Amino acid sequence: MKIICAQNELASNLSLVSRAVPSRPTHPVLANVLLTADVETQQVQLTAFDLSVGIRTSFEAQVEEAGAITLPAKLLNDIVSKLPEGEIIIDDKGVATGQESSEKSASATLTSTSGQYYQVRGMDASDYPELPAITSGQSINLPAEALIEGLRGTLFAASSDETKQILTGVHVKILKDSLEFASTDGHRLAVVETELPEKTSQENAEEENETEEFEVTIPARALRELERMVAALKEPKSLTLNFDQSQIIFEIGQQSLTSRKLEGQYPNYRQLLPRQFANHVTVERKKLLSALERIAILADQKNHIVKCTFDNDAQEVYLSVDAADVGSGRESMSAQISSDEPREIAFNVRYLMDGLKVFNTSEIQILLNKANMPVVLTPLGELKMTYLVMPVQLR
Amino acid sequence: MKIICAQNELASNLSLVSRAVPSRPTHPVLANVLLTADVETQQVQLTAFDLSVGIRTSFEAQVEEAGAITLPAKLLNDIVSKLPEGEIIIDDKGVATGQESSEKSASATLTSTSGQYYQVRGMDASDYPELPAITSGQSINLPAEALIEGLRGTLFAASSDETKQILTGVHVKILKDSLEFASTDGHRLAVVETELPEKTSQENAEEENETEEFEVTIPARALRELERMVAALKEPKSLTLNFDQSQIIFEIGQQSLTSRKLEGQYPNYRQLLPRQFANHVTVERKKLLSALERIAILADQKNHIVKCTFDNDAQEVYLSVDAADVGSGRESMSAQISSDEPREIAFNVRYLMDGLKVFNTSEIQILLNKANMPVVLTPLGELKMTYLVMPVQLR
Repeated sequence: MKIICAQNELASNLSLVSRAVPSRPTHPVLANVLLTADVETQQVQLTAFDLSVGIRTSFEAQVEEAGAITLPAKLLNDIVSKLPEGEIIIDDKGVATGQESSEKSASATLTSTSGQYYQVRGMDASDYPELPAITSGQSINLPAEALIEGLRGTLFAASSDETKQILTGVHVKILKDSLEFASTDGHRLAVVETELPEKTSQENAEEENETEEFEVTIPARALRELERMVAALKEPKSLTLNFDQSQIIFEIGQQSLTSRKLEGQYPNYRQLLPRQFANHVTVERKKLLSALERIAILADQKNHIVKCTFDNDAQEVYLSVDAADVGSGRESMSAQISSDEPREIAFNVRYLMDGLKVFNTSEIQILLNKANMPVVLTPLGELKMTYLVMPVQLR
Repeated sequence: MKIICAQNELASNLSLVSRAVPSRPTHPVLANVLLTADVETQQVQLTAFDLSVGIRTSFEAQVEEAGAITLPAKLLNDIVSKLPEGEIIIDDKGVATGQESSEKSASATLTSTSGQYYQVRGMDASDYPELPAITSGQSINLPAEALIEGLRGTLFAASSDETKQILTGVHVKILKDSLEFASTDGHRLAVVETELPEKTSQENAEEENETEEFEVTIPARALRELERMVAALKEPKSLTLNFDQSQIIFEIGQQSLTSRKLEGQYPNYRQLLPRQFANHVTVERKKLLSALERIAILADQKNHIVKCTFDNDAQEVYLSVDAADVGSGRESMSAQISSDEPREIAFNVRYLMDGLKVFNTSEIQILLNKANMPVVLTPLGELKMTYLVMPVQLR
C-alpha cells in the first residue's frame, strides 16, 4: 500500500472512526484502525469496530499502490493530528531501519513534507474482523433533521444499565409520514414524533412501491455516535437506514455506522400515557430549570428528591427540599395553574432537569392527576414531545 | 449577622477563597468558609484556610448587623453561583423553620429577591482556626508583572514530590534592584531574573531607609494560587510581601494569601550552572516544540527518552525515538550550530517541552558540552531565563 493524502483529511477521518475503537479491546487488533486503499477509485477507507458498533469512512487520496493494513488507532491519531498541514505519504513497504524482516510484522511509514518520518507497528489486515453486511433487508431514507430532533429528545432517557437490555436502546417507529422515537428506563419515558417531509415519503413510495411501516430498537451507544456524526456534517443531509433481522447500517455520504439491533419486544409505552389529566400547569421553562438546578444542590445530598407544590389559589409553583443535616431550600415562581386544589407531588430532581434541558420552548406544560400517578411534561411549541415521569412517594 | 450584598460580588469572592478549602479536610470546620461582617467598615470578609495556605478577601456590602459564621464552602459556592443576579440577604438569626433551637447549631439563611430562600447549616465562627498573622518582620512592594514573569518561568520545575520538602517550593531572592526566582526538582533547574522598576526600589529605599536583600522559599502550591489571584485582577498592580521567620503574607488590594515558608537551606544552584559551553545551537522555538510534541507520543511509550543529534556539517537538529514494539520516529529541522563535531545527547522529552512552553521568544539557544554534562536552554530575547536540564545516558 502506498498513498499520498492531505494531513487534515486523514486527521479528521481518523478522529471520526476512532470513536468506535474500544478503550479496552478484547482482542489486540480491535485497538487498531483498518486502512484500505483502492487504486481504481483513488479512495482510502478507514474502519473501526468494537464488535458491536462499527464506523467506516472514505476519503480521496492519491493511491499509488492498493493494499490494506491495520495500525494502532490512538497512536496514529495522536501523531497525524499533530503533524503539520500538507501531504502525508503512508507506505507499508520498505521500512527504513530494516533491522528485521518485515514479512511477519506489518508496519507502515508516515512521511510528512517537512522533515517528519514515523514508523508504526500494526497488524495484518486479514486479522481484522469483517464489518457485518446487509445483503437483503429493508431500507429507508431519513431526513437528518428529523433524526437529530428525535435523538435529542429521547437519548437521555434510555437506560444506562446494561442488564436492562432492550431499555438501553431507543425504539424507532417508521410510519407512513412520520417517525416516532421512544426511550424509557422504567422511571421515565420520552416520546418524540417528527413528521417526515412530504418529499421524502413520496420518494420512498416511488422507490419501494409502498412504504412499509416498521420498528426497530437501536442501542443508545450507537445512536450517540450517529448523532455526533450527523452534527459534524456541514449541512444536514438525508441518510439511509438499512436493516435486516439482526443488524442496522446508517449511511451518510461517505460515512457509515453499523450496529447490532437490540432484540426483544419493546414495551408498549403508549398504554403508559394517561388519557386525561385533572390538573394543568403552564410555567416558564428556563425559570423552572434554573430553580431546579439550585434546589438540586441540596436535593443531591438527600436522594435527589424535590417536592413540588402547585398552588392554584396563589398561582404559584413551590419547590422545596429539606436535607436535614445540610440545610433546606425553597423556590417559588408564578405559573398558570388550573387545578381543583393545591397539589403536592415529589420527583427525582434529575429526571425533571433532564427533560427540561432538551425541550427548546420558552414555556412548558405539566399535566398531572394524583400524587402517585404519572406526570407528563410537554413543551408548548412545535416540538411534539411527551415526557412522562413517575413521581416518588414522600414519607 | 445580617448583610445585603450583590450576588456577583459574593459569588466571585467565594469562588476566590474556595481555592484554599481542602478537598479532604482534616477537621470538619476546614470545609467551611468563614464570613465576618463589620458594621463600621461596611465590609464582609471571607476566609478559607487549609492550615498551610490561607486566602482572605473583603468586599463591600450593606452590613446591618455585625457577626461571624462559618458555612460549608462548596455548598454555599454552588448555590450562590447559581442564584439570579441581584441582591442576596444573608442572616444568621431567625431561621424560619424554627423546628429546633438555634442556640447550638449555627446556620444562616440566604434570601434572594426573586423567590429563593435557602437555609444552610454551618459551624460556629469560634471553631475556625486563626490565620497566622505577622506582627514583626520584613515587608517589600513587588510589581505584579515581575512576579508573574518569575512564577511563570519557574513554577513548572518545582518538585511535586512532597518528600522532597524544600524542592517543592520556589526560591525567591529579593535583591537591590532585581528579583531572582529559582526552582529545581533535581533533574532540571529554572532560574528567572526580573528587574525591579526604579520607582519601586526607590520607594522601598525611602520607606525602609535601606532595602535589605533577603531570600525565601515559598511552597509552589501557594504560589500557584497567588499566580491565579494576580492573573484574575483586571489591571496588574503591585503587591506587598510580608514575612517573618515562619510565615509569608502576600497582599493585593482587598485580597491576601498566607502561607508557611519552607524551612531549610535552598541548594546553591548557581554553582550548578556551567560557565562555558563548547557547543551553541540556535533553533526556532515553536518548530522544536511541535517536533518534540510529536516525538513524545512515541517517547512516552518508552521512558520518555528522546535522542537529539546536533549535526554541525548539515546545520540540522535531529530528534529520534525508537520504541521497539510500537514504532519509531525521526524529526529534522534546520538550526545554527556552532560545534566542533556532531553531538548526540538524550533527554527526558517532557523536561524539554516544559521549558520551551514557558519561553515566549521565537528563537532559543541550546548550550552544551559533553553528552553527560548539564545542558542550558535560554530564550533569545528579553526574558532573562536560564533552564538547565540534566541529560540521560543512552544505553
